Amino acid sequence: MAELVSMDFEAMWRALLPVGRASTGGYRRSPFASAERECLDWFLEAAVARDLRIESDGNGNVVAWWEPVGAAGPAVVTGSHLDSVTEGGAYDGPLGVVSALAAIDVLRERDVRPGRPIGVSVFAEEEGSRFGLACLGSRLATGVLAPEKAAALTDRQGVRLDEAMAAAGVTGALGRSAWLDRVGTFVELHVEQGRDLVHRDRSVAVASEIWPHGRYRFDFTGEANHAGATRMEDRHDPMLAYAATALAAGEQARASGQRATFGRIEAVPNGTNAVPSRVTAWLDARAESDDVLADLVSDIEDAGRTRSQLDGTALTLTPESVSPSVAFDASLARRLARALGDAPIIPTQAGHDAGILSGAGIPTAMLFVRNPTGVSHAPGEYAEMADCLAGVTALADVLEELAS
Amino acid sequence: MAELVSMDFEAMWRALLPVGRASTGGYRRSPFASAERECLDWFLEAAVARDLRIESDGNGNVVAWWEPVGAAGPAVVTGSHLDSVTEGGAYDGPLGVVSALAAIDVLRERDVRPGRPIGVSVFAEEEGSRFGLACLGSRLATGVLAPEKAAALTDRQGVRLDEAMAAAGVTGALGRSAWLDRVGTFVELHVEQGRDLVHRDRSVAVASEIWPHGRYRFDFTGEANHAGATRMEDRHDPMLAYAATALAAGEQARASGQRATFGRIEAVPNGTNAVPSRVTAWLDARAESDDVLADLVSDIEDAGRTRSQLDGTALTLTPESVSPSVAFDASLARRLARALGDAPIIPTQAGHDAGILSGAGIPTAMLFVRNPTGVSHAPGEYAEMADCLAGVTALADVLEELAS
Repeated sequence: MAELVSMDFEAMWRALLPVGRASTGGYRRSPFASAERECLDWFLEAAVARDLRIESDGNGNVVAWWEPVGAAGPAVVTGSHLDSVTEGGAYDGPLGVVSALAAIDVLRERDVRPGRPIGVSVFAEEEGSRFGLACLGSRLATGVLAPEKAAALTDRQGVRLDEAMAAAGVTGALGRSAWLDRVGTFVELHVEQGRDLVHRDRSVAVASEIWPHGRYRFDFTGEANHAGATRMEDRHDPMLAYAATALAAGEQARASGQRATFGRIEAVPNGTNAVPSRVTAWLDARAESDDVLADLVSDIEDAGRTRSQLDGTALTLTPESVSPSVAFDASLARRLARALGDAPIIPTQAGHDAGILSGAGIPTAMLFVRNPTGVSHAPGEYAEMADCLAGVTALADVLEELAS
Repeated sequence: MAELVSMDFEAMWRALLPVGRASTGGYRRSPFASAERECLDWFLEAAVARDLRIESDGNGNVVAWWEPVGAAGPAVVTGSHLDSVTEGGAYDGPLGVVSALAAIDVLRERDVRPGRPIGVSVFAEEEGSRFGLACLGSRLATGVLAPEKAAALTDRQGVRLDEAMAAAGVTGALGRSAWLDRVGTFVELHVEQGRDLVHRDRSVAVASEIWPHGRYRFDFTGEANHAGATRMEDRHDPMLAYAATALAAGEQARASGQRATFGRIEAVPNGTNAVPSRVTAWLDARAESDDVLADLVSDIEDAGRTRSQLDGTALTLTPESVSPSVAFDASLARRLARALGDAPIIPTQAGHDAGILSGAGIPTAMLFVRNPTGVSHAPGEYAEMADCLAGVTALADVLEELAS
């Protein structure tokens, strides 16, 4: 049996590995665009080859059902996503999808006859790398995001979400997904985005909670001018307030043990010899509780306002998405940890579709697979094959437990 | 006569004003692209309508010759450029070109028979906004820039200079321009990029010198990672060293009365939820002397290296172009100032083709026209029509003096 897992998982992993990989080693699987669509086509083929029934919704999400004779009642669904951040790693998302298919192979090999339907789900635009809103597919499916708000989203080239979806062949209406009503329990397997399991010397963990996190757009506005002829005293240069804000974000987060990052920035007109008229930058902030997050963002904002006042520039802060903390179903987590031989139960700072489903009242759990580098959202993201296979076995154990 | 100047200059100015103007009021006359080409076509028509003989070179520069019977010896050439920075103003460049044509009209109206040929020149890519090197056309024409170095330049879309020139219909080889050998004196009229003339209550000034200035690329490299899951202590985030460097640039320049600007920045991968792997930013620095400029850049670099070391990131500094200070021909400046009724003689912090020609040993002068806002390289750049007309008259006086 171990050999079968190995063969199936490895073959699937190898098939997916080259898709959307740039010469840098980083992945560019932007949602509703070619590489991510190729991954989805691969998934559909793999699901059909396993006699799973495909169900799509109007949000770009797909679920592949295993509905054996006699299976009834609320379904157990597992899965993840196939899109990546720009220059991301291979594991974030696809590991959960490929492991789900491999776990079904294991159950069939074990001759398990599940008492409940089992589904393998792929959610669309989990990273928010194209339309700026993470977990877009699961937010729409659960109804926490209004369809009209989603339809108005545009990517950096000005393409609207509905246009991108139509171009990718997604049909049907945006909004609550009927298939979600069948889900009794949801489990997402994911590569760990940190080194907790390295320190614990374990392959697999169960999630306790997701830290609250938010994305905030900072618009610093000033006055464009000549970079040579304008005296420093006469300038209203918004780059200076941005720089002070970025340093404050690093300092505040470090001092309090939280996370704050300015990874995306756009200057206007972005010319070497022009004082910019505007600098827009996006803050990604996460903290151990909702209150601590609010305090962190407020401290960073204060630093930006103080410096803006000094320079005669202005700061407008727009929260683009704020996700409160998610505590996964505690008894479910304990039950799964026991089933996996007392697996550790650990928190994560990263957002996931599992968090959205949990927030929507669906009993939800997550499994993490050890990542020796701890690196994520970058080419260095990694998991040993032995740990991936341990993850598949753990997921199969969990599905067998939940679907019995 | 005053009426004729007014009519001709104003009509020409009105014709050019809408070309390349965005809805923001800012100009986008990128070299070798549509709006700038439209300006050049307009110039060629206006020159031919005046029976001027067009001469082009392989660097994209154009000169229109007035060669009356009896005119001989080294020529007097005046002109400027038609390209703009992104979101630039209407006056920087075109004012000098339109004033040159209008000044020829004035000389003809005055029945002046110049003893020397008079040329009106348009230099290509003065701003360096597309290929990153300011005064590209005049650097090539004078031979201070090697053709093979220029040919390898690419714009932000990866288009090579020679490809862009070929697409714009520029023929001939890059390199020293034969027409430059005929130039005995060069005069460039330009809108002032500061408010010196406002304080002096004068319309027109003569230039004394150009401050030395340089463009330096700062590449801050670190390690991409997940913005949520990576502890602040475990990061190598190059954005922090950039921010510290940008603040240091503002402080150092202000404290010493010089100029330092970070107006252009690119983050990689530029995603909200990814710690960047690289931040590249361009410093524009100018100072009152070559030594002071070197000290300023060195101080800014030190600040960047200190912070990079703290974060385990790295800084590579590449000077992309450094122009030493230019002292214009002092006796020529005094002669022109006298001819203009003791016009003030003032320095400028902005680079100009006139500085390149002066550096190549051509006796060179500049005239500045009052700018009430002092704003430049931005939509607020402005000159009153009365001052523009005073500039045309002054330029005609200067040409008459020099070509007699």
